[in-house]
Amino acid sequence: MKLDTNLHASAMTPPAFADVLGAAQRIQGIALRTPLVECHALNERLGGRVFLKLESLQRTGAFKFRGAVNRLSRLAEDGVESVIAYSTGNHGQAIATAARLFGQQATIVMPQDAPQSKIARAKAAGATIRFYDRSTESREGIAAEIREQQGGVIVPPGDDPAIIAGQGTVALEAVQDLQRLGLTPDVLLTPCGGGGLSAGCAIVLNAISAQTELYAVEPAQFNDTERSLAADARLEIADRNARSICDALLAPIPAELPFSVNRHHLKGVLTVTDAEVMRAMRFGLEDAKVLIEPGGAVALSAALEKRISLEGRTAIIVCSGGNVDTDLIARLLEQEG
Amino acid sequence: MKLDTNLHASAMTPPAFADVLGAAQRIQGIALRTPLVECHALNERLGGRVFLKLESLQRTGAFKFRGAVNRLSRLAEDGVESVIAYSTGNHGQAIATAARLFGQQATIVMPQDAPQSKIARAKAAGATIRFYDRSTESREGIAAEIREQQGGVIVPPGDDPAIIAGQGTVALEAVQDLQRLGLTPDVLLTPCGGGGLSAGCAIVLNAISAQTELYAVEPAQFNDTERSLAADARLEIADRNARSICDALLAPIPAELPFSVNRHHLKGVLTVTDAEVMRAMRFGLEDAKVLIEPGGAVALSAALEKRISLEGRTAIIVCSGGNVDTDLIARLLEQEG
Repeated sequence: MKLDTNLHASAMTPPAFADVLGAAQRIQGIALRTPLVECHALNERLGGRVFLKLESLQRTGAFKFRGAVNRLSRLAEDGVESVIAYSTGNHGQAIATAARLFGQQATIVMPQDAPQSKIARAKAAGATIRFYDRSTESREGIAAEIREQQGGVIVPPGDDPAIIAGQGTVALEAVQDLQRLGLTPDVLLTPCGGGGLSAGCAIVLNAISAQTELYAVEPAQFNDTERSLAADARLEIADRNARSICDALLAPIPAELPFSVNRHHLKGVLTVTDAEVMRAMRFGLEDAKVLIEPGGAVALSAALEKRISLEGRTAIIVCSGGNVDTDLIARLLEQEG
Repeated sequence: MKLDTNLHASAMTPPAFADVLGAAQRIQGIALRTPLVECHALNERLGGRVFLKLESLQRTGAFKFRGAVNRLSRLAEDGVESVIAYSTGNHGQAIATAARLFGQQATIVMPQDAPQSKIARAKAAGATIRFYDRSTESREGIAAEIREQQGGVIVPPGDDPAIIAGQGTVALEAVQDLQRLGLTPDVLLTPCGGGGLSAGCAIVLNAISAQTELYAVEPAQFNDTERSLAADARLEIADRNARSICDALLAPIPAELPFSVNRHHLKGVLTVTDAEVMRAMRFGLEDAKVLIEPGGAVALSAALEKRISLEGRTAIIVCSGGNVDTDLIARLLEQEG
C-alpha cells in the first residue's frame, strides 16, 4: 500500500457544513443546479418514491465541476494562474473548463485508456493533456514533476477540503428540493470512487438531514471503501489488475481526507458488477430517458438490483455523470437488445 | 380535405390563461414539473442562453400526460368510467396511464406501425388496444364506432380545451423557472403535430410573456401548420403518403381548436428534415445526455440547424418526448458514428 504522501492530506481538516454553504454561493450561476427528477418507472418497480439527482446534466457532464469551480475560484482570487490535475477523466474535464472560466492554464494528467470523449472535451476546453500508463506510471508523481518544472497548483480529485465542499452541494440541492415537496429522504445512494462525493454528501446530511441513511456504491472489483470501512483503515482493492467499465471509479484506495469523513458517516457500502451496471444504463436510457455513464450508474444499479430495499421509502439516487463513448452505448443496446 | 366534424371543435372555445392555471393545480403531484435545464454545449454553439424543457422526462415519456390528467380528472369527477383515444402513441400512452390513476377503462386506437415501445407501455398501463391501418382506415371513425358500441367519452389529442390548457403548463413552468433566474425568454421553440402544445404555449405567452416569440417546428413533409398559416385556413400536407421518423408529429392537418389559437399567435413555423432530426437526437445523447424521440427533437433540431438565430438571445426549447425504440437509437449511432 502506497500512500499519496505528497498531498499531506493528513494535515488537512475536512470541510464543515458552512463550507458547503459557501461553495453553493460560489458555484451559483456557474455550475448548474441540476434537476432532481422523480422516476415513476422506478417507483413502480421498487415500491418507494425514487428521485434521481441528474449530475449527468451538470456542466462538463459530471458533478466534478462543482468542486472544481469552488476550488479554482478561490485559487483565482489568490492570483494562481496555472493548475495541474490528474484524473480518470471527469475531474480533469471539470478542471479544464473551470480553469478556462477563471483565466487559468490547466495541465491534465490522464490515463492513456480514458474514454475518447473525455480526452476530446478536456482538449476542447483548452487544457494541455499529459498521458500516462495506468499500470507502470504514477499520476501523482507526474503531476509533482510538472509542478516542479512549470509551477502551478496541483488540484487533487478528493484530498482537498474545497473540492469536498463543492461536491457536497449535490446533496444540499437534492435535500432542499425534496423539502420543497414536503419530503425527507430516508436513503441517499451515491457512486463512490475516491470518496469525495460521498464525504461531501455525508457532511450535508449530518447537518440538515441526520435521519437519512447514506450508502456509497462501488464496482464489485473496486470496493476499496467497503474493504477500508471493514478494516477501519484505508485499504487498497484486492487485485490491482482489476478492470471495470466504470472508468470514473477506478481509484485503488480511498482518498485520505474523504475517508476520514466516510468512516464515521456511511451507513454502508453496496457493490455492483459491470453486467449490473450495463443493465442500469439501459434502464436509464429506455425508462428514465437519460444517458448515464457506467460509474455514474452504480447507485441506480444498486437500487435496481435491490441491494437495499426502497419499499415504502423516499430515496435520492445520485446519477453522477453522463460522459459515455458512443461505442459503449452501441454495445449496450446490442448486448441485451 | 376532410374535417373531423364528429368533434364539433368549431363549437368549442379555446381555453383562457385561467384554465392553464387551473390545469397546473390539477396536475400538481400527478404529472412532473419537468426540469428546465440550461445547456452550455448549446450556448457555446449558438451564442445565446439556451434552456431545454425536458418533457422527455415527463411521466409516460411525453408532455401529453399533462393534458390527459387535466381532462380525465374532470371526467372522473363527472362519473365517466371509460375513455377512448386515437393516437400515434404518446397521447394514447398518456390517456392509458391517466385512466388507470382515475380508475377509468381506456381503449386506445393506435396505428399498426406505432413504435413497439409505445404499444407495450399502453398495454402495460392496462388499456385495451385497437389497431388500425393508417392508410385505409379512419381513426376518428373507429373511435366513434367504439363509443357507439361500448359508451364512454372520446378524448381527442388536440381538439379539446382541457387538453390544450394542460399542455400550456409546459410553457407556464418554463417561463416561471426562467423568471426565478431573472430571465425572460426571447424565443420559445416547440414541436408541432396537431398543434395542441403550440396553442397551449401561445395562450401562456400571450398572458405573461407577450414579448416572447413563439415558433412551431414541424417535419419538412408534415408542414400542415406552415401551409395553413400561409393560407390562413386549415390545409392538409401536400403528400398524404409522406413518411417521417417523427412518429409523434404525423397529423396530416392542424386540429381545429389549436389552429384557431395558433393562427393568431405563432411568430412563424420552422421545418426540419429527418436527417436533421437524427443529428439533433445524437446531439441530445452525446452533448446534452438526454434521450429525445424524433418528434420531440424537431425544435432542438431547428435551433442546431440555425433556422433561427439565437445569438445573444434567451431561448426555451421544448423537448416534447423521449419514447424511442431501441433499434432507432442503435441506427442513430451507426449512421453517423
